[in-house]
Amino acid sequence: MHDLIIVGGGPAGLSAATYALGKQLDVLAIYDALGGKAGTRQSLAGQAADEYLAGAEAVRVFERQVTIQADRSMHDQVTGVVKATGVFQVATRHHGIQESLAVIIATGATPIALDVPGAQELLGQGLGYSVTSHAQLLAGKTAAVIGTSARALRGVAELARTATQVYLIAPDATGLATPFARALQHRANVEILDGYAVQEVVGARNVEQLIVARDGQTRRLDIDAAFVDLGLLPNSAIIGHIAQTDHDGFIWVDDQNATTLPGLFAAGDVTTAFGEQLLIAIGDGARAALGAYSYLLACLPSRADVSRD
Amino acid sequence: MHDLIIVGGGPAGLSAATYALGKQLDVLAIYDALGGKAGTRQSLAGQAADEYLAGAEAVRVFERQVTIQADRSMHDQVTGVVKATGVFQVATRHHGIQESLAVIIATGATPIALDVPGAQELLGQGLGYSVTSHAQLLAGKTAAVIGTSARALRGVAELARTATQVYLIAPDATGLATPFARALQHRANVEILDGYAVQEVVGARNVEQLIVARDGQTRRLDIDAAFVDLGLLPNSAIIGHIAQTDHDGFIWVDDQNATTLPGLFAAGDVTTAFGEQLLIAIGDGARAALGAYSYLLACLPSRADVSRD
Repeated sequence: MHDLIIVGGGPAGLSAATYALGKQLDVLAIYDALGGKAGTRQSLAGQAADEYLAGAEAVRVFERQVTIQADRSMHDQVTGVVKATGVFQVATRHHGIQESLAVIIATGATPIALDVPGAQELLGQGLGYSVTSHAQLLAGKTAAVIGTSARALRGVAELARTATQVYLIAPDATGLATPFARALQHRANVEILDGYAVQEVVGARNVEQLIVARDGQTRRLDIDAAFVDLGLLPNSAIIGHIAQTDHDGFIWVDDQNATTLPGLFAAGDVTTAFGEQLLIAIGDGARAALGAYSYLLACLPSRADVSRD
Repeated sequence: MHDLIIVGGGPAGLSAATYALGKQLDVLAIYDALGGKAGTRQSLAGQAADEYLAGAEAVRVFERQVTIQADRSMHDQVTGVVKATGVFQVATRHHGIQESLAVIIATGATPIALDVPGAQELLGQGLGYSVTSHAQLLAGKTAAVIGTSARALRGVAELARTATQVYLIAPDATGLATPFARALQHRANVEILDGYAVQEVVGARNVEQLIVARDGQTRRLDIDAAFVDLGLLPNSAIIGHIAQTDHDGFIWVDDQNATTLPGLFAAGDVTTAFGEQLLIAIGDGARAALGAYSYLLACLPSRADVSRD
């Protein structure tokens, strides 16, 4: 039985694992993929150098520290987490059930994909799912944002600071009624295409055009990048109903990253404390590990108590 | 005028600066000293290797990224921060007044020093001010904790997991009445010295003994390390009364690291969200920078609006 199992190999999970290893806990980090968003870069036409992502170097340091300990990390998929008589049972696809006294869920969130021709092919070549991670690449260029969530609108404002032109493709008018959205309409370099749907993403090697349509009428927009924000789905199904989530499935956490189930902690994009930034996920991962460690301090025997047995 | 001034060169300030530079803000990082607690290591007698501090490598990466930009960083002391007609004025000792639209305070907290013979000389040689950062060094050894705060008691529990013997020096009984403190008294390897005061820290190169006394009676405790926890003083005097603090002076922040004054943010040990861990400070620094960035997005003109002027 382990002290702590950490599920997820993104920035939050790797940071939690690094912290827990530093505390010399018997920790097992189970990950399906390593690096998470730290590995998601955009490459635009004519871009000179690799994009700079604050915190990505730190994530790579953590990655080395965790994977170098073969008995502390496991490349596998977790299919479910339950708690019975004080012990967590973490079911994996290939390594059976792993047990621990505490668990941290750091499985992230998956954006709803844009399902049109060209979208899959141009992913990372000018088509992306996070404005705020990549906006700095669009200085002096033209970009489109697809969606009307608060996150999408904030992305438009961020792009409008430095981009020459920003299109907001609003499939439906939901979200456009806020004061923030109305202020965006008055920006000289922002055009809102209300009621338009994306038909195709066009480009040979990088994104070049977006084809959008409304009522059978088609427009071809010349752009350097398009950002999709049709919603995010938290990867929280593995915890079933053992802890509280919000109505979208994001795991509720308090300011110590504890969930509603004692011993179960969560960090990063899968939680209600969603930060979406590498550095924030790093901090919340460590906070969850500190929370788990405090929880464990109350149940782990001290050295002397063990010797007496 | 800068977009953002960041005060403090510890993990929270450096992380905030790294994030803000990634966002291509006109940021100025003003620091008195670099690295903060990332530079505080303990060295015990017979210790083989340098202590491992989770996150210290990341802080060094940030340090390089910030200081490499000579026009973005300033080695100076900040003496005061005020806000007048929407602009922050940050007074420095050697570079006059620096102005910005937003400010992040990340000036940390200073522990109340143990003021007895030997304490100054043996600092870092077995005498320290943070149990949780260094507890892993004490496995199989003997340690003392001086103080009765919740933080001190938690430190005793952490040490008791792996240390052979832990002394809790409790100058007064405040804090010993909690259930947690009573549980500690029953640990076989914990001895509470109630009403004792520290007279001297003894050691040639590293801490060897602690001399404590009560009612004229003296005891010499053989120890490998002593941790002082007599309280922490937040370095928040520079903000005067422009934002709310708690009664100990820690700057109140919300879950976006915003203070009560619009445009003023705070992160790290100077705040009520005190985390004391490098990785947590890194995350909170980035969260403050993201908050400041969102605040700035509302006031910075877009590229097109500027061109029209």
